[in-house]
Amino acid sequence: MSLYGVIPFAHHLLEKTITRGDTVVDATVGNGHDTVFLANQVGASGYVVGFDIQHDAIQNTWHRLKNDQLDEHVELIEDSHTRIEEIFKRKGYAAPKAAIFNLGYLPGSNKTVTTNSDSTITAITQLLELMPSKGLIVLVIYHGHEEGKKERDALLSFTSSLDQEKALVARYEFSNRKNHPPFLLALEKL
Amino acid sequence: MSLYGVIPFAHHLLEKTITRGDTVVDATVGNGHDTVFLANQVGASGYVVGFDIQHDAIQNTWHRLKNDQLDEHVELIEDSHTRIEEIFKRKGYAAPKAAIFNLGYLPGSNKTVTTNSDSTITAITQLLELMPSKGLIVLVIYHGHEEGKKERDALLSFTSSLDQEKALVARYEFSNRKNHPPFLLALEKL
Repeated sequence: MSLYGVIPFAHHLLEKTITRGDTVVDATVGNGHDTVFLANQVGASGYVVGFDIQHDAIQNTWHRLKNDQLDEHVELIEDSHTRIEEIFKRKGYAAPKAAIFNLGYLPGSNKTVTTNSDSTITAITQLLELMPSKGLIVLVIYHGHEEGKKERDALLSFTSSLDQEKALVARYEFSNRKNHPPFLLALEKL
Repeated sequence: MSLYGVIPFAHHLLEKTITRGDTVVDATVGNGHDTVFLANQVGASGYVVGFDIQHDAIQNTWHRLKNDQLDEHVELIEDSHTRIEEIFKRKGYAAPKAAIFNLGYLPGSNKTVTTNSDSTITAITQLLELMPSKGLIVLVIYHGHEEGKKERDALLSFTSSLDQEKALVARYEFSNRKNHPPFLLALEKL
């Protein structure tokens, strides 16, 4: 493919931004796919902090990280990503260089558990405060379901009104595909 | 910058797509910046065909290519890009692997000379016919002026209705910037 798919492009931007030794955030651990990706990006000298409110997501991802011997530089927190600021400050972690959010429900899991725009916007706001200049937040937005549509609209409204002196907001999407394909919002702190 | 600007992202996608020896199209030569970029990408074994309806654009770019010793594998045509199909067929050129359009007026030149959506859509349609699978068309759309707005709307309507079995259409834009920044449409032939 000459074009990037939405998830490959999210990963490409993270690769461009993250260097070994960085501290980064997986704001929605889910099946752990991005947690593993981030752990490999930051390497043994880096650190990944992952959040998920679902017990199964945390447990399954922890097993996966152990199997891949990546668990020593990852911390998984079974709680909302609205606690990012408190945890980073209390534990004295280095400023997060990058973060990813997969917004929607955990694939194959309970579809009534979804992310919601209030907590997502709270977490983004905290990250933009904590991050260094050039820090990157990528949001992969699944909006095929009712809650997803509301979250999408709230996030588009929030991000498009962010002060352009403080953050750049880029949007990447496929515009001729049916069935509400996911799209990407990427925020760079200035 | 962690994110790509619109023009750097257009060039990045072209770099990903083009290999040495390819034939490619600069549909809007303008100041020749993209023509030089494309000539360097395809190398001495490749070929660039450039179009512009403005005499000065063709003359200035030709001098630039001569200076950079890139003129031997570039052909500049002082005519509309709606002639792409006719010229490729008549001259027996290899199928174009990629094409770029900068849609708007020639920087620093006569602002009454603009591209228009009818000829742009005709040229895109011809390119999608001529191109091999994975061929890429990038469109950088300047829409700060009246003609630009009409062209933008016509192109968004045309591209978003392209059959998703025949071409993928991606859009990349900055959503929190003032003053109508340019955005990118990228089409991959399937």
